Amino acid sequence: MIDDLIQKPAEWLRGEGPMSDIVISSRIRLARNVAGFPFLSRATDEQRCELTSILRSNIDGAATGGQWTYLDIEKLDELDRQILVERHLVSRNHAESKGSRGASVSKNERVSVMVNEEDHLRIQVLRSGLQLREIWEEINHIDDKLEDRIDFAFHPRYGYLTACPTNVGTGIRVSVMLHLPGLKLTGEIEKVFRAAKDMRLAVRGFFGEGTEATGDFFQISNQTTLGRTEEEIIDGFSRQVIPRIIEYENIERRKLLEGRVLALDDKIWRSYGVLKHCRTISSDETMLHLSHLRMGVNMGRIKILDLATVNELFLLTQPAHLQKFFGSRLNGEQRSEARADCIRRRLTES
Amino acid sequence: MIDDLIQKPAEWLRGEGPMSDIVISSRIRLARNVAGFPFLSRATDEQRCELTSILRSNIDGAATGGQWTYLDIEKLDELDRQILVERHLVSRNHAESKGSRGASVSKNERVSVMVNEEDHLRIQVLRSGLQLREIWEEINHIDDKLEDRIDFAFHPRYGYLTACPTNVGTGIRVSVMLHLPGLKLTGEIEKVFRAAKDMRLAVRGFFGEGTEATGDFFQISNQTTLGRTEEEIIDGFSRQVIPRIIEYENIERRKLLEGRVLALDDKIWRSYGVLKHCRTISSDETMLHLSHLRMGVNMGRIKILDLATVNELFLLTQPAHLQKFFGSRLNGEQRSEARADCIRRRLTES
Repeated sequence: MIDDLIQKPAEWLRGEGPMSDIVISSRIRLARNVAGFPFLSRATDEQRCELTSILRSNIDGAATGGQWTYLDIEKLDELDRQILVERHLVSRNHAESKGSRGASVSKNERVSVMVNEEDHLRIQVLRSGLQLREIWEEINHIDDKLEDRIDFAFHPRYGYLTACPTNVGTGIRVSVMLHLPGLKLTGEIEKVFRAAKDMRLAVRGFFGEGTEATGDFFQISNQTTLGRTEEEIIDGFSRQVIPRIIEYENIERRKLLEGRVLALDDKIWRSYGVLKHCRTISSDETMLHLSHLRMGVNMGRIKILDLATVNELFLLTQPAHLQKFFGSRLNGEQRSEARADCIRRRLTES
Repeated sequence: MIDDLIQKPAEWLRGEGPMSDIVISSRIRLARNVAGFPFLSRATDEQRCELTSILRSNIDGAATGGQWTYLDIEKLDELDRQILVERHLVSRNHAESKGSRGASVSKNERVSVMVNEEDHLRIQVLRSGLQLREIWEEINHIDDKLEDRIDFAFHPRYGYLTACPTNVGTGIRVSVMLHLPGLKLTGEIEKVFRAAKDMRLAVRGFFGEGTEATGDFFQISNQTTLGRTEEEIIDGFSRQVIPRIIEYENIERRKLLEGRVLALDDKIWRSYGVLKHCRTISSDETMLHLSHLRMGVNMGRIKILDLATVNELFLLTQPAHLQKFFGSRLNGEQRSEARADCIRRRLTES
């Protein structure tokens, strides 16, 4: 399964879908727990195994997006678990925790149902570009199908009960990953941060929770799950928050094209020069330069590259993908050398 | 004359001669004043003009290295004067001062005799690589020929009298321009600075007096001119000071090749990538990257370039050469863009 995955681009980096020059991907996840079982923090190993067994056998019936494959995360080696994290199919916490746990992943990598993450079930649907309405329809369907078979812990007044109180209610988290190099370059990004804070939205980095909003990639997600319906939350994102940020980013990009095109081109082409010729490079520096290339391609400033190549490099240069690509375990220094090597090969071919 | 000059590489950047992987160029200059005339700081405009006239008519008789051309520095425009500075044919002070003054320059650009610089006469001979003995022979011959025709101010006890007391005696200054990227990278360059200070040698930057020893290029010169013969000073440089620094630089380069070859290659190739793709670049940054390329070519780490191209770029990217190349006056920002353009063209051709 894992070896099949790495042969193709991850869904979230496909670079397709509406607004995909600025919106990398959209994601919704629902938190659910099985009635009659304690939350995982208080569950025994036996209860945990029992949950895995019950959930695994009931998940397949909800399949959308082609066949789902159940992965026993506990039995995967560290590298394979890391591959799943880099493809945004499981959370870092899920990969790194202990005990019986798994994930059912659809063939097209849009759906992942995590078993025994923080909650008994975490249903996630992910698509490239801005597709929250479509995702909502799909995840709603999956949730219904699961609920036909499983009795979820639900309180008539509070809604779905979850391990962490911040998820109680709808149990929904809506996230959109944005590429905002224009706002970053002109320094206006701080205003977006402040506005997001005022709207009680969280801003995180490339790998979601626990990663800092450095670089030019920002994941924006809701923090409140109580007191508003799922549709209200999704509509807020789809019709207001995200379109406004996109418009703002486009204004800044136009400003750069009008008044600072030389500095813009310089930044883009220097990044190309470094990526094409360096002999060792960290993951962070790679992300920064790839961000500039992505901006350059999307703004029509660099034509010798296509978006698919840039997106492929985002994934190929991640530690686990890199080690799979080279077929061996590498320490940090070796990875930096392998990363430079991999980028150079790919840019020379393109 | 100036337009002829810029068609070919400057002597000091020819990249030929002994030890030219580390020694960029060697230079000797002699300070002389005409007896019966006051030093320039106290000379009237009339005396200054009279000196120019007397010296100009007597200089040609000392010609070596092909025909000499006399340039009336006062009448040259600022750009042409700057070209002479960038080619190390006249000092920055000489270019920027006022009043009647000139320079007689040999066709091969090895000899320049400045009239009314700080002293009435400054005779300079310059060659690429480590060639102090050869330079000494040539400059000694020129000095003798001039002394046949001109009565120099000379004191039986103190020697040649000069405007600045630091030049009294032999009036000699011996300078060697070194490229020491190895010592710079390993941090050992500080020890060279300390040793030079102990030996009462001055360490300066790429453009000599008044420029800081930043980057990887260092001009080392004597500070004392009294109490030692010219031969002793030159021998000290040729047989002791410079060979020791060269050996030290070679040791550091070997260390880099043995223990840090990846970091070394990374530095060299990143510089290549930036120079080849940037769209705007300052003079200082250009020097830094060209230094890495020069090291890369000389150490056999980069083979798609030759030393002649790198040397040509050192000169072409200087402000005045750049403006001559593009045929128009450029402000700082325009120069940075033109510089990037010029480098990109040259590296794409090579």
